[in-house]
Amino acid sequence: MVNPQDLKVVGRDHSRVDGEAKVTGRAIYAADIELPGIIYGKILRSPLAHARLVNIDARKAERVPGVFTVLTREDIGRFKHFGSAYKDQSIVAVEKVRYAGDPVAAVAAENEAIAEEALSLIKAQYEEIPAVTTIEEALEPGCPLVHELKPAEGNLYAHQYQVPERFKETNICYHYEYTKGNSDEAFKQADFIFEDTYTFPQVQHCSMEPHVTVANVEGDRITVWAATQDPFTLREHLAGIFSLPQSKVRVIVPFVGGAFGGKLSVKMEPITVALSWKARRPVKLVQSVEESFKTITRHPARIRLKSGVTRDGRLIGRECEIYLNTGAYADAGPRVAQKAAYRSIGPYRIPHLKILAYAVYTNTVPAGAFRGFGSVQVTWANESHTDIVAKKLGMDPLDFRLKNLLKKGEPYTPGDTPVDCSLREGLLRVAKTLAWGQKNNKRNTGKGLSCCIKDAGGSYKIASAAIKLAADGSILLLTGTVEIGQGAFTALSQVVAEELDVPIEQITVAQLDTDVTPYDVATSASRSTTVMGLCVQRAAWDVKKQLLRAASRAFNENVARLSMAKGKVYNSKSQALSYEEIVIRNFGSKWGEMVGFGSYQDKKDKRAALGALTVFWEVSWGGAEVEVDPETGAVKLLKYVSATDVGKAINPLNCTAQDEGAVVFGIGHTLFEEMSYSDGHLINPNLVDYHVPKFSDLPGQLHTDLVENRNGPGPYGSKGMGEGGILAIAPAITNAVADAIGVRMFSLPLTPERVWQGMKIHAGR
Amino acid sequence: MVNPQDLKVVGRDHSRVDGEAKVTGRAIYAADIELPGIIYGKILRSPLAHARLVNIDARKAERVPGVFTVLTREDIGRFKHFGSAYKDQSIVAVEKVRYAGDPVAAVAAENEAIAEEALSLIKAQYEEIPAVTTIEEALEPGCPLVHELKPAEGNLYAHQYQVPERFKETNICYHYEYTKGNSDEAFKQADFIFEDTYTFPQVQHCSMEPHVTVANVEGDRITVWAATQDPFTLREHLAGIFSLPQSKVRVIVPFVGGAFGGKLSVKMEPITVALSWKARRPVKLVQSVEESFKTITRHPARIRLKSGVTRDGRLIGRECEIYLNTGAYADAGPRVAQKAAYRSIGPYRIPHLKILAYAVYTNTVPAGAFRGFGSVQVTWANESHTDIVAKKLGMDPLDFRLKNLLKKGEPYTPGDTPVDCSLREGLLRVAKTLAWGQKNNKRNTGKGLSCCIKDAGGSYKIASAAIKLAADGSILLLTGTVEIGQGAFTALSQVVAEELDVPIEQITVAQLDTDVTPYDVATSASRSTTVMGLCVQRAAWDVKKQLLRAASRAFNENVARLSMAKGKVYNSKSQALSYEEIVIRNFGSKWGEMVGFGSYQDKKDKRAALGALTVFWEVSWGGAEVEVDPETGAVKLLKYVSATDVGKAINPLNCTAQDEGAVVFGIGHTLFEEMSYSDGHLINPNLVDYHVPKFSDLPGQLHTDLVENRNGPGPYGSKGMGEGGILAIAPAITNAVADAIGVRMFSLPLTPERVWQGMKIHAGR
Repeated sequence: MVNPQDLKVVGRDHSRVDGEAKVTGRAIYAADIELPGIIYGKILRSPLAHARLVNIDARKAERVPGVFTVLTREDIGRFKHFGSAYKDQSIVAVEKVRYAGDPVAAVAAENEAIAEEALSLIKAQYEEIPAVTTIEEALEPGCPLVHELKPAEGNLYAHQYQVPERFKETNICYHYEYTKGNSDEAFKQADFIFEDTYTFPQVQHCSMEPHVTVANVEGDRITVWAATQDPFTLREHLAGIFSLPQSKVRVIVPFVGGAFGGKLSVKMEPITVALSWKARRPVKLVQSVEESFKTITRHPARIRLKSGVTRDGRLIGRECEIYLNTGAYADAGPRVAQKAAYRSIGPYRIPHLKILAYAVYTNTVPAGAFRGFGSVQVTWANESHTDIVAKKLGMDPLDFRLKNLLKKGEPYTPGDTPVDCSLREGLLRVAKTLAWGQKNNKRNTGKGLSCCIKDAGGSYKIASAAIKLAADGSILLLTGTVEIGQGAFTALSQVVAEELDVPIEQITVAQLDTDVTPYDVATSASRSTTVMGLCVQRAAWDVKKQLLRAASRAFNENVARLSMAKGKVYNSKSQALSYEEIVIRNFGSKWGEMVGFGSYQDKKDKRAALGALTVFWEVSWGGAEVEVDPETGAVKLLKYVSATDVGKAINPLNCTAQDEGAVVFGIGHTLFEEMSYSDGHLINPNLVDYHVPKFSDLPGQLHTDLVENRNGPGPYGSKGMGEGGILAIAPAITNAVADAIGVRMFSLPLTPERVWQGMKIHAGR
Repeated sequence: MVNPQDLKVVGRDHSRVDGEAKVTGRAIYAADIELPGIIYGKILRSPLAHARLVNIDARKAERVPGVFTVLTREDIGRFKHFGSAYKDQSIVAVEKVRYAGDPVAAVAAENEAIAEEALSLIKAQYEEIPAVTTIEEALEPGCPLVHELKPAEGNLYAHQYQVPERFKETNICYHYEYTKGNSDEAFKQADFIFEDTYTFPQVQHCSMEPHVTVANVEGDRITVWAATQDPFTLREHLAGIFSLPQSKVRVIVPFVGGAFGGKLSVKMEPITVALSWKARRPVKLVQSVEESFKTITRHPARIRLKSGVTRDGRLIGRECEIYLNTGAYADAGPRVAQKAAYRSIGPYRIPHLKILAYAVYTNTVPAGAFRGFGSVQVTWANESHTDIVAKKLGMDPLDFRLKNLLKKGEPYTPGDTPVDCSLREGLLRVAKTLAWGQKNNKRNTGKGLSCCIKDAGGSYKIASAAIKLAADGSILLLTGTVEIGQGAFTALSQVVAEELDVPIEQITVAQLDTDVTPYDVATSASRSTTVMGLCVQRAAWDVKKQLLRAASRAFNENVARLSMAKGKVYNSKSQALSYEEIVIRNFGSKWGEMVGFGSYQDKKDKRAALGALTVFWEVSWGGAEVEVDPETGAVKLLKYVSATDVGKAINPLNCTAQDEGAVVFGIGHTLFEEMSYSDGHLINPNLVDYHVPKFSDLPGQLHTDLVENRNGPGPYGSKGMGEGGILAIAPAITNAVADAIGVRMFSLPLTPERVWQGMKIHAGR
């Protein structure tokens, strides 16, 4: 282990190891993969939000010259249903379609144009059923059920994803409850009780690269090149669907153009594999942006919060009810509901809690994992509510927060990892940078703060890595972490360079291929720097140990008397052997390689609320200053301060970029983004009608502040980051808007129209 | 370790795990690789055997529409020379061309037709130099030198490849000498001395797949898909040539369509990489059959043998002088010379030995590794000579052989591994099957025997393998062995299936990729079953150990009380846990993988003649019965018996197929194959004019006999095989021809014309 004061590579800015390939356009993404005899897939999607599929006739489509195969429900009888939490999805629709966009059939043809033409010739006959598109409609007694039969098979590995008996004849697909103390009693004792309800829109990940898969089925062997964040889990899903041993399914991950949770678990890969299986050819399926909009989203949410407080400003009781619209299929919905509930507790000391979360099926695009994973919605509600409570008590929101914040070392919930950083310190840093308390002279301007915390590191923390040291001293790093744009390859390479004391240029990260890469459960939950970072560090230590042992033999001197520096091992007489020389001496030739291995496995803990200890707490603080146009309702972000606890920044440049990215994402759902439905149809599935932030939408001033106290469990005290920044922005801006114009907004995004309406109602009071 | 009597998978016929992909045409070879923006390479080859390259003008070629780049000597200044033993090759010719076919320039274009057109527009101006094409010409005093300067840089890793000072101004590029006792003294004591000289033709490997490379240079990263037998060594060569760390060079091995030594080391890969580097595009270079003929061959040889024998038939002294024509570049020539010398000792007890070997540069196609590696040539001479000596002594060649054969346990040379099988037993088996001693009634028929031994297993025996056990109990095998058609993937899978007691269908062999596959030095020297077999077995034991430890925790019972069978671990109460259940319990979820690792490293031994102990002795025996047409000289192979010591056949079906393949190969160079030159030009570089055996050329009866005594060091007592069978056939047939017509042939192949000439000379005596 390198001492903090001796760090050479870690803690310094380093340009991205994957940067050059990306900016020069030479990076190969899944859509670039070519194979001999490859053909092109296209999906026929349901035009209706909810219907019985009466008949499907593909004969005309099959006869189009250049069409290799048409896949319908007739073909998939032998294949299993699938899904992240429940096995509630089929490769194509069997009895029903459940949202406008649900895959009904697919074609593989010589080129995409022919495939499109063939799609238009497939005759699907539907019998429409009334649709439910909102949480409210889906909870109406007697409303249509999206899934008549509740998924019989729960997630095989997570028994908590079982829907209680009482919800079996409803659209509620999952329920989670967390209680601590007695909230009813607390409300009786409270001096004040405040309650309000928030709604959060449906938004999409908008990765630059949509969902893309190339599949090649050869006999009993499936090879898939996929834009995926969790290739090993995808392998497991595909093995399950197609009833094959996992060793017969190979997932290769080319460059990935953004993911943000949208490429977790299983998406369009099964349909691509089924096409290749039927056509006996490799098949490429490249989704359009519109199709990715119709594949996966963040959960729209309705959150009711009720807090009991004492006159002197102490939170004593909290009730929180969370409804998440998980769309037509559960995907990760149950897990998001669970996490949203757990994360709704927030950064404050509240002795009595009752939290109820529900995932609800509707006839809309499925919702699943998305940067923040349930936390974005609840944090927005929570930290808006915190301001309201403070204001109603007549307290400064900063003071109210400081009074109630959990201390470092205090338990978040009994049995889980204690809070691992000073919440107070970061909040004060943001307040200072924002010049909190100093009123801007301009009219219709205001400031808002927020403080956010979420458990991070993932629930199944199994990971491993390997390092191969070649006979010329150069290094290959094998890691199951996917480089999805977050900069993981650079940070992990820095850890290896640091531990083995070699220039980072000596290190190459091998392509991820489930056949050969050591296992990793997923690239998610801000876990890679911490969990994979530890694996990589341990693998480096393993190589170090082998180098020292080999050098000890070469020098004929005890390992304890040797030292390592700058890619060499020194003996007690200061004689040096380079790694190259050591490897050659070890093998007696230039032929041979040293291999180091490192792994990480979580300890289950029944006392922890979610069954395993939180790896670390991802903490962020936000401060916004806005100006609201009284004529149009347009919110202009004058200044934004984002502070994030990173423990120790492995690559400060990249941490800053990650945090800036999180801020921009947050600006999107705070001010602009919302998927809109009309008659069950998504009406803005494109980047013209759906407004992601443009450069002109960025704040006039943007401050990012990395808080470093080496308090993380990762290498050198690092922690994961990149999700924190996205949590803080919506409540900070919403609080700033309230400060600016005295109008409290309970629904996102804060579009001019919505804010203008708010002002009108407010004025009319 | 599984007990011999309990073997379930090993020792049983198993169809090839790579068979289905190959016969259905779905196997992807290097030529099938497609990449975005890929362009196609073609090589301009020298029309002259020896010339100074005065000028080269590529301007016209560069202007052809569709041409991306033309590579000439102007471009390669920064790249290093290369070669297997010496760095005597450049990517394209710099000052001289050294054989007709030597690469002079290369083009990469939109398609091959455009590339060909551009080649024709490159103007190369030569100044011809007299050429030497035979060993005799090349040794003539004052003859032209193929390389004026002897390679300054020897092979960095094998210091024995240095040419002695006295040969510096000659075409001798390497010399090796082995002596034992005092042969001059022995000849003085001998009752008889017999001496004769043999010549062996230049032959080509004729893999079904010619040499093919796809290269993609991206910044400082080279990726190569190559039909290669030693991807790790190729990586090392490319890193050297292009001055990159090995970690920046990635070699991926798709299916390979035959190799036989012709795809070892470095061939056309550097030129492909250089094209991709200059064009900034991926480049595919597919050689034609003609081009592969002009890339690498087996060494033509001239071998003089002199034996001193006693009246009662004991060999007491031997002198052997071997000249190998290594062509225009050394390639593996020095090593082949060394091995040919060592292997020329043969299976007999000869107290006094003097062996001299020379590798000689000529202006012909380079010669290098080829199944048998120097042994084919010397064994043919040796075992022809043995018959001559026996006949001249008036002894039955069988009796003479039996009298002089080394015994099991006797040293081959002092300090090396003793002979590990009974040479006598195999020879008697073959004699029996051939009905040795019973004269065929037909005229012009005859019988011949041979007995052959060669050191095997390779000189740098560094190998490693890994096994990944997924949470569903399925297995991935990572091995650096290349499946070149020899059946290695099947045999290695059988070892894993046996050790882990699972069906072979649960095992998948991962694609070989130097970035991620554990290191292996090469697929050569019949080493994979033994050396890689041990690695794979050890990796399986490692997984077993981990399974037992995890099961011990799960059962809460000592490992010593557990047992394994049929993919399950049993405790003392006969309760069972499947591997799947153990892995899941170990990781607490379906997420995780157990990884086992196994490696093998040779022990250097200075006492051994070649510096390292021979891993095992590859031994074969041949028996031929022929009929010679007195009118035409045509030799008809009536019957052939091939016996091979396999120690233990892992997959008998495949061992038999390997041996049959070796016999067919041997028939080729014995009866038909010979590369012919006229004016320095190879005149038959194609499969019409160059005669490889057809089905109609196969023997009327073919017996293959696997000798199994579990005497090998590989798993279950196995040994490598597949090279033995190719050694025995030429001398057995030649001896049978002599027996049939009384004419002794000293040159191969035994074409009708050559035999007819022999008969004419014989009749004229």
